[in-house]
Amino acid sequence: MQLEAQWVVGFVDGEGCFHVGINPHAEMSVGYQVLPEFTVVQHERDIQILHALKGFFGCGVVRKNHGARMAYRVRGKEHLLQRIVPFFMAHPLKTKKNVDFLKFRDVLLLMEKEVHLTQEGVEQIRAIAAQMNRGLPR
Amino acid sequence: MQLEAQWVVGFVDGEGCFHVGINPHAEMSVGYQVLPEFTVVQHERDIQILHALKGFFGCGVVRKNHGARMAYRVRGKEHLLQRIVPFFMAHPLKTKKNVDFLKFRDVLLLMEKEVHLTQEGVEQIRAIAAQMNRGLPR
Repeated sequence: MQLEAQWVVGFVDGEGCFHVGINPHAEMSVGYQVLPEFTVVQHERDIQILHALKGFFGCGVVRKNHGARMAYRVRGKEHLLQRIVPFFMAHPLKTKKNVDFLKFRDVLLLMEKEVHLTQEGVEQIRAIAAQMNRGLPR
Repeated sequence: MQLEAQWVVGFVDGEGCFHVGINPHAEMSVGYQVLPEFTVVQHERDIQILHALKGFFGCGVVRKNHGARMAYRVRGKEHLLQRIVPFFMAHPLKTKKNVDFLKFRDVLLLMEKEVHLTQEGVEQIRAIAAQMNRGLPR
């Protein structure tokens, strides 16, 4: 299945999620791991759409989510910085989800400078992450 | 806000709903009113998207839904047959929602022939509607 850029923007405006997890992690010297991820969740009947997104972006994985739901997921700052962020800079989201995307990008640009490996940097990222995905009832 | 056709397809693949209501109606000779509707629901923060869809299709209304949610809604077989159905025939949905759309179209084509004004027609439409929007957990 071939996807067009504007279809991807529209679908992600509806179904995509940009999230920054900050998880306790004993092996990190600052005690936390910053985990940005881009996900699109669908009922398993539409798994072919998730594989089409994976093909479109040339990165990420399709995995089981909860129950009968599957997720397309991109983790790892390289793929996010090289594939996902440039795409949504060139083809902006039209909903308020773009505000979340821009904060997500801010976090990744900090991570590119390895800011997340310092205590101060983790707090800076935590402050940005706290402003994301607020009040998003379905 | 200008929307591109493929963005609209992607967004409706995620957020749109094609529904056929069959409601008891004392004033109809068959006792039921068949009410097809196309809706897109969003949080009120994205109301501008709903108005952009209204502008794009050149029909429908933007109304309050439940709580902080707003809906773009098209009812009435003329607008559905002249605006909504031709658009999604020319620009097919990519998810399994297209199966619902095609059944929705079948109902509208029956209504165009005024089949819904007979008892038999209402039952025929009821059988099609029963196959739509099945197992659509979010």
